[in-house]
Amino acid sequence: MARLVVIGGGAAGMSAASAARRVAPGLDVTVCEAGGFAAYGMCGIPYYLGGVVAEPEDLLAYPPSEFRDRRGIDLRLRTRVDAVDTAAHQVHLTGEDGAGLLGYDRLIVATGADPVRPPVPGLGHPRVFTIRSLDEAIELRQLLDTGVVRRAIVVGAGYIGLETAEALVEAGVETEVVEALPRVLATVDEPVAALVQTELERHARLRLGARLDEVRPGPDGTLTAVIGGADTPADLLVIATGVRPASDLLIQAGAEHLADRSIVVDAGMRTSLPDVFAVGDAVALPHLVLGHPAWVPLGPAANKTGRVAGTVAAGGTASFAGVVGTAVVKVFDLEVARTGLGLDEARAAGRDAVATDLVSRSRAKYYPGSSPLHIRLVHTPGGRLLGGQLAGREGAAKRVDVLATALHAGLTVDGLAALDLSYAPPYAPVYDPVVAAAVKAAGSVRPAPQPAASTAGGSP
Amino acid sequence: MARLVVIGGGAAGMSAASAARRVAPGLDVTVCEAGGFAAYGMCGIPYYLGGVVAEPEDLLAYPPSEFRDRRGIDLRLRTRVDAVDTAAHQVHLTGEDGAGLLGYDRLIVATGADPVRPPVPGLGHPRVFTIRSLDEAIELRQLLDTGVVRRAIVVGAGYIGLETAEALVEAGVETEVVEALPRVLATVDEPVAALVQTELERHARLRLGARLDEVRPGPDGTLTAVIGGADTPADLLVIATGVRPASDLLIQAGAEHLADRSIVVDAGMRTSLPDVFAVGDAVALPHLVLGHPAWVPLGPAANKTGRVAGTVAAGGTASFAGVVGTAVVKVFDLEVARTGLGLDEARAAGRDAVATDLVSRSRAKYYPGSSPLHIRLVHTPGGRLLGGQLAGREGAAKRVDVLATALHAGLTVDGLAALDLSYAPPYAPVYDPVVAAAVKAAGSVRPAPQPAASTAGGSP
Repeated sequence: MARLVVIGGGAAGMSAASAARRVAPGLDVTVCEAGGFAAYGMCGIPYYLGGVVAEPEDLLAYPPSEFRDRRGIDLRLRTRVDAVDTAAHQVHLTGEDGAGLLGYDRLIVATGADPVRPPVPGLGHPRVFTIRSLDEAIELRQLLDTGVVRRAIVVGAGYIGLETAEALVEAGVETEVVEALPRVLATVDEPVAALVQTELERHARLRLGARLDEVRPGPDGTLTAVIGGADTPADLLVIATGVRPASDLLIQAGAEHLADRSIVVDAGMRTSLPDVFAVGDAVALPHLVLGHPAWVPLGPAANKTGRVAGTVAAGGTASFAGVVGTAVVKVFDLEVARTGLGLDEARAAGRDAVATDLVSRSRAKYYPGSSPLHIRLVHTPGGRLLGGQLAGREGAAKRVDVLATALHAGLTVDGLAALDLSYAPPYAPVYDPVVAAAVKAAGSVRPAPQPAASTAGGSP
Repeated sequence: MARLVVIGGGAAGMSAASAARRVAPGLDVTVCEAGGFAAYGMCGIPYYLGGVVAEPEDLLAYPPSEFRDRRGIDLRLRTRVDAVDTAAHQVHLTGEDGAGLLGYDRLIVATGADPVRPPVPGLGHPRVFTIRSLDEAIELRQLLDTGVVRRAIVVGAGYIGLETAEALVEAGVETEVVEALPRVLATVDEPVAALVQTELERHARLRLGARLDEVRPGPDGTLTAVIGGADTPADLLVIATGVRPASDLLIQAGAEHLADRSIVVDAGMRTSLPDVFAVGDAVALPHLVLGHPAWVPLGPAANKTGRVAGTVAAGGTASFAGVVGTAVVKVFDLEVARTGLGLDEARAAGRDAVATDLVSRSRAKYYPGSSPLHIRLVHTPGGRLLGGQLAGREGAAKRVDVLATALHAGLTVDGLAALDLSYAPPYAPVYDPVVAAAVKAAGSVRPAPQPAASTAGGSP
């Protein structure tokens, strides 16, 4: 019987394994997961940390028994793959029973992304965490539950840093966010980032343009972070300075990759190595606005690429169309969403781009709960939509999906302004913010209509 | 100086007047509004009735002074137009100072829609209301404020009937909804209507398949409604059995219209009458899924057509692209949204249509507040999207906009399944319900992939 081996039991890997079993019920499917949990997404971890979600098991899409007993998948937890031998069609692994070899006919690598640890002395301190696995989150949550953590430092103000800061504040910890850049959340443009900063500063301290130089042990298990030359005592430090593709196994095996070490795949998620597929946060995916593959590691695409690879590896037909870079993050009471290219991103990609900004509302202005909703459209001077960003207390997360759909469809701002979007006072103003921003953008790309005095001012 | 006359000071009429002034600042613009308020949308009225919105003025987009003093528009309230004389280019009106004539160079008719009053004896009772103007709503609210209304009957379970029932319940009134059809909310398909019915019945009595035969006076100003032959005493009866185009003026003047009396217009909102435009709830608009004009009276299109007509009438350039029939209604704690064609509607239009139903969730299953979200996609057997409907406690209203955008762009269910939509646990499952439903629908339109034993089951 043919054997499919999947390295990595996260959402992408388990999607791949399950899809393969559906397509080829006779296939022997083995999943090797280095950690103690499978079938969960990274994105839920901050909510477990902050106590919004009670148990780590709540984050699992399915319990291990679902895969082992019902889907017939050989799920091996705490089993690390150390090397891939494509010539011999086998992987070298270390499990709870020691080292071994596992042969495969097809291999799907779903190793995800790893945290970037800055080259700072002292990061081996037991109170320094990165949060990239549920096992590590459990360890941190246990520490929080002991009550010894009163002050925490989060290094990095990207998605994970902001979500972690919120989780710590939710858990009652006095939190400071330290960011080397002069602004937060580099994945959105300045005006939107400014709203994020304001919201963050309502709940936590923020130091911008500040670097972590060193971590030193403090008294009673605490630590001292040296930030911009000054000592800051803390009970906990979380490194959230970004992630990079966990692609070492594949690159060591010779897989083609981009400069950022993300793995190059085709529409069926095949790597350049024979019988080896790659999925999830380690791969470069076609970016439909940029027009070339890019590394945009986000959950929905990870799940979809898993499904595609599992289907194709098992002999079925599937392909992955691409991404437009849609993402949303909750920052305390602010929803922040983006899709496509930001203004700087578009210009860096060589596009002639302009931005149209508007402050609209989440609901009819008279309806309770109505709040300001900031929207930015990024488009060419000729009106082709390149991206969009929204931020507000509500109404940003799913409105960005209209912009994402418009990007998939190649709409112009005129086309966006013409959309027939839903309206009722509890849910939107009569001109939905997306349409209102598009009307404004369309006005900027077209010559204003002439007053035509001979018609309107004369005798019509 | 040329004069533009606008009949009707609702949202569409005031949009038209304002757009005309912007395009041609020298234009003389007069608006005749039969009621005592201008620049409000009908859609806000239930929230004023139910006390969610405190004052009628809260519903106005702008106060009269904004139009009169800042925009230079001659806004005449309590001024009814009785006839249009296209040959003489003048309208016959009755204002607070009596009858008169008003000449125009161009005329925009924004008379909206009128409630349908069924041919039932006794509807002249002072406690029988329709709710189609703010003036009437104020009268009803005053009645509610007296405290004499303990039991009310709402006849009709469409959008307005359901919103009115909710408003009355919010105002503390024991409410019964009576509907002649065997189901509620005919604008959505049966499975979605069933959810609406369940939600309605949590808060109000519902009698389906029952007709109002007569209204008789009861003791102390109350009334007795005869429904299906049985007497039902009540303190109030609201007729919400639908609306029809308020197009009498235009039809009497000879304007081309559809069988349902909606006015035929071109993309610039010109009627068949010289120098006469029509906008808002009285006109037929291009339905982009049906492929022909249809009467779909809803707020966003009313506003947009007003803007287009005002621009064009003043000598500018604008056109209205069309609608796809997107609508959303709040029914107590349920959001109900629809766009495009329902299954029956599609079949009635001669389309070969099927439906794919899915129950997904509004947020990640483990995130607090996550609730079931029902989604139906209507599509051709070949996968072309024709419409969609959603219902749930949250997450329906703006998700339907993704489907509306997809209809504008002519996407297939495959295209919908490929969309890169936003994900974070507080806002969506990793497979957004729209994508999940599209994946299911795509599975139904394509032959399932072959198990391909020679590849996956043999030696790949």
